[in-house]
Amino acid sequence: MSDIKRVVLAYSGGLDTSVIAKWLAVERGLEVVTFTADLGQGEEIEPARDKARAMGIPDEHIYIEDLREEFVRDFVFPMMRANARYEGDYLLGTSIARPLISKRLVEIAHEAGADAIAHGATGKGNDQVRFELSAYALDPSIKVIAPWREWDLTSRTALIAWAEAHQIKVPTDKRGESPFSTDANLLHTSSEGKVLEDPWQETPDYVYSRTDHPEDAPDIPEYIEIGFEKGDGVSLNGESMSPAALLAALNDLGRRHGIGRLDLVENRFVGMKSRGMYETPGGEIYARAHRGIEQITLDRGAAHLKDELMPKYAELIYNGFWFAPEREMLQAAIDLSQEKVTGTVRLKLYKGLASVVGRKSPHSLYSEAHVTFEDDAGAYDQHDAEGFIKLNALRLRLLAQRDR
Amino acid sequence: MSDIKRVVLAYSGGLDTSVIAKWLAVERGLEVVTFTADLGQGEEIEPARDKARAMGIPDEHIYIEDLREEFVRDFVFPMMRANARYEGDYLLGTSIARPLISKRLVEIAHEAGADAIAHGATGKGNDQVRFELSAYALDPSIKVIAPWREWDLTSRTALIAWAEAHQIKVPTDKRGESPFSTDANLLHTSSEGKVLEDPWQETPDYVYSRTDHPEDAPDIPEYIEIGFEKGDGVSLNGESMSPAALLAALNDLGRRHGIGRLDLVENRFVGMKSRGMYETPGGEIYARAHRGIEQITLDRGAAHLKDELMPKYAELIYNGFWFAPEREMLQAAIDLSQEKVTGTVRLKLYKGLASVVGRKSPHSLYSEAHVTFEDDAGAYDQHDAEGFIKLNALRLRLLAQRDR
Amino acid sequence: MSDIKRVVLAYSGGLDTSVIAKWLAVERGLEVVTFTADLGQGEEIEPARDKARAMGIPDEHIYIEDLREEFVRDFVFPMMRANARYEGDYLLGTSIARPLISKRLVEIAHEAGADAIAHGATGKGNDQVRFELSAYALDPSIKVIAPWREWDLTSRTALIAWAEAHQIKVPTDKRGESPFSTDANLLHTSSEGKVLEDPWQETPDYVYSRTDHPEDAPDIPEYIEIGFEKGDGVSLNGESMSPAALLAALNDLGRRHGIGRLDLVENRFVGMKSRGMYETPGGEIYARAHRGIEQITLDRGAAHLKDELMPKYAELIYNGFWFAPEREMLQAAIDLSQEKVTGTVRLKLYKGLASVVGRKSPHSLYSEAHVTFEDDAGAYDQHDAEGFIKLNALRLRLLAQRDR
Amino acid sequence: MSDIKRVVLAYSGGLDTSVIAKWLAVERGLEVVTFTADLGQGEEIEPARDKARAMGIPDEHIYIEDLREEFVRDFVFPMMRANARYEGDYLLGTSIARPLISKRLVEIAHEAGADAIAHGATGKGNDQVRFELSAYALDPSIKVIAPWREWDLTSRTALIAWAEAHQIKVPTDKRGESPFSTDANLLHTSSEGKVLEDPWQETPDYVYSRTDHPEDAPDIPEYIEIGFEKGDGVSLNGESMSPAALLAALNDLGRRHGIGRLDLVENRFVGMKSRGMYETPGGEIYARAHRGIEQITLDRGAAHLKDELMPKYAELIYNGFWFAPEREMLQAAIDLSQEKVTGTVRLKLYKGLASVVGRKSPHSLYSEAHVTFEDDAGAYDQHDAEGFIKLNALRLRLLAQRDR
Repeated sequence: MSDIKRVVLAYSGGLDTSVIAKWLAVERGLEVVTFTADLGQGEEIEPARDKARAMGIPDEHIYIEDLREEFVRDFVFPMMRANARYEGDYLLGTSIARPLISKRLVEIAHEAGADAIAHGATGKGNDQVRFELSAYALDPSIKVIAPWREWDLTSRTALIAWAEAHQIKVPTDKRGESPFSTDANLLHTSSEGKVLEDPWQETPDYVYSRTDHPEDAPDIPEYIEIGFEKGDGVSLNGESMSPAALLAALNDLGRRHGIGRLDLVENRFVGMKSRGMYETPGGEIYARAHRGIEQITLDRGAAHLKDELMPKYAELIYNGFWFAPEREMLQAAIDLSQEKVTGTVRLKLYKGLASVVGRKSPHSLYSEAHVTFEDDAGAYDQHDAEGFIKLNALRLRLLAQRDR
Repeated sequence: MSDIKRVVLAYSGGLDTSVIAKWLAVERGLEVVTFTADLGQGEEIEPARDKARAMGIPDEHIYIEDLREEFVRDFVFPMMRANARYEGDYLLGTSIARPLISKRLVEIAHEAGADAIAHGATGKGNDQVRFELSAYALDPSIKVIAPWREWDLTSRTALIAWAEAHQIKVPTDKRGESPFSTDANLLHTSSEGKVLEDPWQETPDYVYSRTDHPEDAPDIPEYIEIGFEKGDGVSLNGESMSPAALLAALNDLGRRHGIGRLDLVENRFVGMKSRGMYETPGGEIYARAHRGIEQITLDRGAAHLKDELMPKYAELIYNGFWFAPEREMLQAAIDLSQEKVTGTVRLKLYKGLASVVGRKSPHSLYSEAHVTFEDDAGAYDQHDAEGFIKLNALRLRLLAQRDR
Repeated sequence: MSDIKRVVLAYSGGLDTSVIAKWLAVERGLEVVTFTADLGQGEEIEPARDKARAMGIPDEHIYIEDLREEFVRDFVFPMMRANARYEGDYLLGTSIARPLISKRLVEIAHEAGADAIAHGATGKGNDQVRFELSAYALDPSIKVIAPWREWDLTSRTALIAWAEAHQIKVPTDKRGESPFSTDANLLHTSSEGKVLEDPWQETPDYVYSRTDHPEDAPDIPEYIEIGFEKGDGVSLNGESMSPAALLAALNDLGRRHGIGRLDLVENRFVGMKSRGMYETPGGEIYARAHRGIEQITLDRGAAHLKDELMPKYAELIYNGFWFAPEREMLQAAIDLSQEKVTGTVRLKLYKGLASVVGRKSPHSLYSEAHVTFEDDAGAYDQHDAEGFIKLNALRLRLLAQRDR
Repeated sequence: MSDIKRVVLAYSGGLDTSVIAKWLAVERGLEVVTFTADLGQGEEIEPARDKARAMGIPDEHIYIEDLREEFVRDFVFPMMRANARYEGDYLLGTSIARPLISKRLVEIAHEAGADAIAHGATGKGNDQVRFELSAYALDPSIKVIAPWREWDLTSRTALIAWAEAHQIKVPTDKRGESPFSTDANLLHTSSEGKVLEDPWQETPDYVYSRTDHPEDAPDIPEYIEIGFEKGDGVSLNGESMSPAALLAALNDLGRRHGIGRLDLVENRFVGMKSRGMYETPGGEIYARAHRGIEQITLDRGAAHLKDELMPKYAELIYNGFWFAPEREMLQAAIDLSQEKVTGTVRLKLYKGLASVVGRKSPHSLYSEAHVTFEDDAGAYDQHDAEGFIKLNALRLRLLAQRDR
C-alpha cells in the first residue's frame, strides 16, 4: 500500500474520525480528503467543515453533502419493496446506508484524484465488510485503509491521549465512558455494546434516543393513511411527499407513539453474535403499511415468491452485497412485482403498535364477489373444489396405498 | 358413493353440524357417528352428547374427546419450532387444528366401522382442503362427504327452514344474521365474513372475543419468563407446565394485555383473497419468545436455513399438507436444529406489545468475549477481517474489472 | 356454457382433432374455427386446410400459421437462459409449447369473434392444465371446451365408429393400435403410453423418431462451435442464424450423433407418475452449450442464485404457469444475469454425448492470473485465505466450544 | 502459534508433503506425526511408512489407515442421496473426501497428544478451507499449519532445492514439470492447472487416468443392474456388495466404457474461477441410477423439495461446511425421504453414456392403473381435472380481470 498518496475518509466530525484523519496524515503521510454525508442522522453536518479546516485540510478537499433523498429513494424504498427483515425482525437500518456512503467515497476518490478510501469501522463488525465490499465492487483497484484494524490505539485512553498529543479537541463528554456505541440515519438508530452486552439484561431507558417510551405515548390512538404508488410510499394523510420527507414525517409519528423498538441478538457476517437495540420508528410503520397494500394488490404467486426470496435478499444486504449481481437479480424480480402496488393503507398508531386496519386500491385483487359467504351469483362454483382436492390428494393417496 | 353406509361427522353441537347430521341421515340414508373434540375452543363439549342423542344417535356412536394436550404438543409446538407465519404474519391457528381432527375422524371411522367422514366446511374455503387432504393421506380409500358442496341449502333461511322441518332446535340468536363466521381453539380465534368483507373498514370492536382492547389493558407493563427445552416451552415464571397448560396461561396473559390481534387479507389455497381478524394472544407471546431463545442458542447457519425454509413450511400447513412427505422432511430438519434451544426468555407485555427484553441459556452461543468493544484478550484477531473481506470481494472485483 | 356460439379449436389435422371438430359442430351445435400451427413438428400443416374445408369449415375460419421463430425466440430461448430441467433432466419440450398455442387460440378467438377455445388433450395429463391456465390468464372470461373430459367416446373403437358415422376419413394406420402417444415440435418429440407403461422395460427401438441410435452414429466425433449473445444462441460454426434456424441445425447434428434421448419417470401436476421417452437432440446440445458459456461469463453469486431458482422455474413451466407473475419475476431475475453471457462454446458430439470442450468470451471472468499454480505476480495474496477461513470458522468454533 | 509442540500432518508420501514434514521439523521445531489414508486413490500407502521412518519419525507417530469403507458409506453415499451436483454438474469428488481426512487428523491429534494439524493444500484453492473448517468444527482449539501459505518456497525449483538440501529423495519424474495437479480417491480423479488453464483448449488425452476414451470403449453396450436399499446402493447385477466394493466395481465398468468425464469451469469459494477435468466413472453411473430409483419410489413433494434444496446442499459441501449444522439439517430432511428408496435400476453403458433404461421396486409409486391411456376402471375421474384447473386458474383470472 506504499503507493497511496491521497485518501478519502468517511468523516463524521466526531472524535474518532478526527483522530483517524490526523493519523492518516501524521502516521501514514497521506493527503486526507474528508467526506461528510447527511443521511438524516439528526446532527448538523456543517460543523464538520470547521473541524476539517482546523486539521489543515484545504477547502477543496472537504466534501459535505445532503444525501437524504437519494438514501431513501434509491436504497431504503427498494429494500422495503422486498419486505426485508434480517433474521425475522431487523429492518437493516445500518446495513442499507453503507453502500451509499461507499458509492460516494469511491466517486469522490475519482473526482479528487485519490487512490484510497478510509473508514472508521472496527475489525469486529459488519460495517467494515459493507464499506469495503461496496467499494471494491465499484472500483476494483481502489485501496482501503481501515485504521481500527491497523493502528495500536486499542483503548479509549490511548485514543484520547493520541488526540490530545495531536491537538485534536476532545469534548468533555467523550472522556467519560460512553455507555454504548450508536449509528444513526433517517431510517434508524442502533445501539450496541457495553450495557447491552449482557443479553439477559433489559435495555436501560437512557439508551433510547429516537422513540418515546410506549408508556409515555398518548393514550389516544392516532390514525394515519399512507399512499403508495408502484410499491413506494408517496403521501401521508393525502399530502404528497418526497421519499425522505415521508420517512421523516413517519419518524415523528413513530417517535411520539413509541413505535419501532427492537431488542435483538443477531448473527454477524464475521461469525459472532451481537446484541443490539434498534429504533426504527418511521421504518416500522412504513414496513407494515407496505405489507398492507401488497395484501390486496399482489397475486399469491408473486407474494409467496417474494416471501421465499426475502431471507436471502435481507442476508445479502446485511452482509454487504448490495452491489452484487445476485442482489440486483432479486431486485429485478421484486421490482417487477410492484407495478400495481398502488393504493392507500390506514394504520392505527398506539403505544408501540402500528397496526394496519384498512387498505384500498384501484388495483385491488380482493374480490368481495368471490369471497362472500353470501350468495355469490355464480362467481365461484363450489363443485370445482372437489376436483381440486381430489387431484391434490392423488399423490398422497398413492403414497398411503403403498405404505399402509 | 352409493356404497357408503356409515359416516363419522366432525360435530360441534351447533346448528350447522346438527343440520348436517340430520341431513346425512334423512337425505343420504346414512348411519351417523358424531365426533366432538375439545381443542380449547372455550365452549363446553358435553352438551353435544345430548344434542346427538336427541337426534337419535346411539351412545356408542357419539365420540367426545379432549384433545388439547395432543393438539399443542404434537401440532402447535412443532409448528412453532419453525417460527411459522403464513404470508409474513399469520400464526396458522385454524390450519394447524384441521389435521388433528381429520386424524381422529379417520381413526374413529376405522373403530366404528364407518366408510366415510363428513365435515361442515364450505366449498370456498381452505378448511375443506385441509380436512380432506389429511383424511386421504391417512386412509386413501376413505370417502368424504362435504354437504356444503352438495346440498341445495344455499341460504341461511333455507337452512333454518330445513332445521325446523326436521325438529332441530334453532337457538334464537341464530335466527338473526350472525355478523361474521368464527373458528376457535386453544391457539386462536378467527373471524371472517360479513362486516369484515370490506378490507378498508376497520374491524368493529364487537368482533373481538379473545383479547381485551389494548386501550383497556393495564397501564403497567407485566414481565414474564418462559422456559424452553429443546425448542419447546416448558415453564412460565419458573413453574413447569404441560404444553396445553402453558398455552392456556399465555392466553390469559395475552388477553389481559390485548396481545395478538391481526387484521389480514390473505391468499386462500383455492385462489381467492379473504380478509380475516385473528386473535392469537398466547401464540403471539410464545412465538416471540421462541425466536428470542433461538437468538442465543442457534448457530447462524441453522437459523438462516430455517428462515429460508419457513415460508414453504408455513404454506404447506396453510394449504393442508401436514401429512405430506415434504412437510415431514422440513420438520426433520427443523427439529434437528432444536436440540440446544433451551433456556429462558424474559418478555414485557404492555398494551398489545409482547417484547423480548432478555434471554439466557446454558447453551448460549453469545460470546461476550468475542463481541465486546473492549479488549477481548485475543479471542478475535481483527486482522483476520482483512483477508475475509478481500476474498469475499474477489469475485466482485473481477466483475468490476470486466464491466468497467 | 349454453351461451357459447363459436369456438377456436387447436387443430392438427389428425383423426382425433378432426373428430373433435365434428363433435363440436354436431353434438354441441357450435361454429368451429380451426387453428393449426407449425411449431416444427416435422409434418406439413397445409393439408389441415383441406381437411378443415372438407368438414365444411369456411376459409375465413381456418387459421394456419408458422410459429417456429416465435416459439424458439420467445419461449425456448428464455427458458434455456434459466438452464431449466424438470426433475433434474427433462428439458420441458412439450410444456413450453403449450402457452404459445394458447396465446394464439385466445387471440384468434378475439379476432374471429369466438367465445370459447377447445383442445384435444385428455383429462389425465398435464397439457389440459397448461392450455387452460394460459388461456384463463390471457382472457379471464374465455370458455374452454375439453371434449376428452366431456364426451362418452372412451375407447379407440368408439372414436373410430363415431368418425365413420360422421364421414371423417380414418387413415388405415390409425385403425391398428398405435404403440404409443407422441407430441412433437422443434424442441423435442415425446412418446408416452402403451409399450412404455412398464418402467422396467427398455424403450423399444421403434419408438425413436428424432435421433439415430448412438450405436449407429458416426465413429468419428464432430466438433462444433455455438456463438451466444446476451444469453441466446446466435450462430453455429461462425454462421449467424435465427433462433429457429439454429435449433433446427442443432437438431440435425443431434439426430446424426444420437444425442438427447431421455427415458424418464416423471411426476405429473395432476398427481400421478408417468413414464416418457423424450428426444431433444438440438435442445440437449444447446442446453449444455449455454451452461458452458455461463461458466466463464457469470459471476458465482448470479450462477448460484440461478441454480437455486431453477427447480421452481422449471416446475412452473411444467405445471402450466408460464403466464403467471411468479414466472415473470423469475424471468426478470434470470434475464438480468444474461447481459454478458456472450461468447463461443466448442462441443464434441459423439455417439450420444454432447460435451463442452472449450469456451471463450470477450467478457470472460476466468482469470488465468488469479488461478495459476505458477507465480501470479501478486494478483492474489495467499495470506488473505487465513483470515477468510478463520472468520468463516468462527461460528463453527463457538458451536464446538459449546457442544464439546 | 509458538505454543505448538506436536503436529499431525496429512501425509501422502509424495515429494510435497515430505518436504512439509521436514520443514515442520526443521524450520518450526515441531514433532511431526504423519497420517496417511487410503481413500482409494489407487496408490499403495505402505511406502509412506518407510519414507516417514527415513525422515526420523518414530513408528508410534506414523498412522496409516484404510478408510475406503467409511469414506463411501458415511460420506459419498449420504451425499449421493441428495443427488448433489455443484454448479449443475460436478459430483464433488474432492470436496467430500476432505472432511473425513480432517476428522481423522483431529482424532489422531487427540490420541497422539498433538496440538496442531497441517496439510499440503495451497492458499488459492478450496481444499485449505475444507480441511480447516472441518478441523475447527471438530476441535475449536486445534491449531492449523498451512505451509504453502507460510513458507517462502514459492517455486518448484526452490522446493526441490530445499528437499535435496535436507536429504529428501526427489524422484526423477518430479524434476520435470508435471503437466497438471491431481487429486484422487475412490470417487474421482481431478486434474487442474497448467495445460488446463486455458478454458478454450480441449483437455489433452494424456490428462485422463481413470477412464478410457469413449472412442476406445467397446462397440457393444453393456447392461447392468444396481440394487438399492433405503437410498443406498447394495448390489451389482444381483450380487451384494459393501459400499466401497460397489463403487470400485462401478469404477471398473465406468473406466471401460469411458463414462464420467467432466470438463468444467467452476467457481471456487475463495472467489476465483478455475478449470478442472474430473473423472468420476463409478460415481456418474451411481448418481444416474440413484435418480432412476427415486423416480418410481419418491413422492413428488419429496422429490421437488430435494431438488430445491440440492444446490445449497452441494454448495455447503463444496465450500467445506460438511460439519455445519445446516448441512446436518438438510441431511436429516434428505435421509427421511429415502426410507422407501429401494429397488433395482437397469442401466445401459455405452461409449461415455450411462442411461437408465428400467427401474422396479417393491415400493413403486408408479401406478399403471392411473396413468394408462386405456380404460382405467375408475382409478381416476377425469372430471376432477376441471375443478383442479378452475381453482388453479382462479387467481390468474382475477389478475387478468384487473389488468386487462
